[in-house]
Amino acid sequence: MIAKEEITVWFQTLQADICNALEDADGTGKFTADVWQRPGGGGGTSRVIDDGSVIEKGGVNFSAVYGETPTKILTALNLDKANFYATGVSIVLHPHNPFVPIIHMNVRYFEMSNGTYWFGGGIDLTPHYIDREDAQFFHSSLKEVCDRFDPAYYPSYKKWADDYFYIKHRKETRGIGGIFFDRLTPKDNQSKSDIFSFVQAVGQAFAPIYTHFMNKNRDLPYNDQHKKWQYIRRGRYVEFNLVWDKGTKFGLDTDGRTESILMSLPPFAAWRYNFTPPADSAEAYTISLLNKDINWI
Amino acid sequence: MIAKEEITVWFQTLQADICNALEDADGTGKFTADVWQRPGGGGGTSRVIDDGSVIEKGGVNFSAVYGETPTKILTALNLDKANFYATGVSIVLHPHNPFVPIIHMNVRYFEMSNGTYWFGGGIDLTPHYIDREDAQFFHSSLKEVCDRFDPAYYPSYKKWADDYFYIKHRKETRGIGGIFFDRLTPKDNQSKSDIFSFVQAVGQAFAPIYTHFMNKNRDLPYNDQHKKWQYIRRGRYVEFNLVWDKGTKFGLDTDGRTESILMSLPPFAAWRYNFTPPADSAEAYTISLLNKDINWI
Repeated sequence: MIAKEEITVWFQTLQADICNALEDADGTGKFTADVWQRPGGGGGTSRVIDDGSVIEKGGVNFSAVYGETPTKILTALNLDKANFYATGVSIVLHPHNPFVPIIHMNVRYFEMSNGTYWFGGGIDLTPHYIDREDAQFFHSSLKEVCDRFDPAYYPSYKKWADDYFYIKHRKETRGIGGIFFDRLTPKDNQSKSDIFSFVQAVGQAFAPIYTHFMNKNRDLPYNDQHKKWQYIRRGRYVEFNLVWDKGTKFGLDTDGRTESILMSLPPFAAWRYNFTPPADSAEAYTISLLNKDINWI
Repeated sequence: MIAKEEITVWFQTLQADICNALEDADGTGKFTADVWQRPGGGGGTSRVIDDGSVIEKGGVNFSAVYGETPTKILTALNLDKANFYATGVSIVLHPHNPFVPIIHMNVRYFEMSNGTYWFGGGIDLTPHYIDREDAQFFHSSLKEVCDRFDPAYYPSYKKWADDYFYIKHRKETRGIGGIFFDRLTPKDNQSKSDIFSFVQAVGQAFAPIYTHFMNKNRDLPYNDQHKKWQYIRRGRYVEFNLVWDKGTKFGLDTDGRTESILMSLPPFAAWRYNFTPPADSAEAYTISLLNKDINWI
């Protein structure tokens, strides 16, 4: 059976590959590396890009941490005491140009000393301005990845993303969703490697998908109004991450590494009281599409 | 015994008085009023100021809401079913000039159909740059208000504010604290009016204290570095309000009026990965003072 070390090394390589692909596409931005250790065991490398040609602020984090399982997880799993091992790659990119979407990706593996393990992950897109064709490209790409493994994956994980990336207090989705899955374990005649292969495919899909949007939209002209709207949408991104995102909450609650957890926050965000874009504007069109259960394909 | 109607009317008047005092001090900014109704009963008036001479964004909210008590409160109070009535004034002001502090004030009254009632409230200050004299003025003013009622109030409510306005994941306080109190009910030979008088005194202290800072610091020169630091401190303000503030959490969880709850968020905020100001800078000095249990007087 595939061991945690193999998965860890693969994630580490994925981090490097993605940073290289993003630097190539960006042209001028370079990732810096910040290596950190976790007091309770393990650590990670946060790779951060700042003020590139396309990416205004972004992070591609790798971590492999282990030790005594936090009480919150033990309680959730109904366990007394166990050690855990968790490794993964987590990405959020905030572009300069409001027509380039914000993207988030995460792939992760979790294992306990009692033998339990699972994979989780997903990719979701947050366009400041929703473009139907871009949304179709994004969801078709994810469906294609899923379908290589199981035709049931895309519909199920697409719905999971819709439900997960939902800003309840705004009654709107964070963006156009994508796929989200958690606690994946082998079913029927599946092996651990089958699931790992799927998670690898999701990880490998990230760079081609996002560099497509970088290349396609990086030079689209924009004005102050577009930029203002981008700041407001980023404000909603902050609201989702700090109020509803379970990973962020868990990390901050359990004394995780704050700078790595909050790497997802935008360089600059804005809030206006009761901001409502004019009817028939591109901004109002975007809001009208921030709903669950849209078939983007 | 003093009735909820009387308290409600007093809060409404306080809102008007404070808005007038702030408009006078600001010079050009004017509050607009947004009257809203709560589907379950009651409503409020959000008064918002935008791009004044001193205040960049601020809100002075009044509300009086009632109806069936949310399950979360019933559980906390170990009650099956009861109606509630809640009224109060809540303020957050974000100034343009980084040398004018952010301020927050809240006074509130809560009553249940089973006869239980209590008062709560407080004032706390978040300077982007901590000035010892300003901090002393602020805390002395609050102590003076408290001491008029009970010499035990200031030390106790000052500590409560230190503990409440704490950004756990940053291991820093939101600012220099102030006073915070909740669930105040008459003790010993106190009457309900005694407590209401104290809450009124806190409410009335707000305008003189904040207009003092507006007048004193509004014309202090500042540059891009100061402004950048202000945006970063505002980012921390967002983190506190969205991650740790119990009132915000409760409001968003129980389907409160989002725009009124999130009125506290700044017009613009920034996040930088691992931002650390140079040693011996004014910014580093401020961080060194973001701790609990400092005697500012």
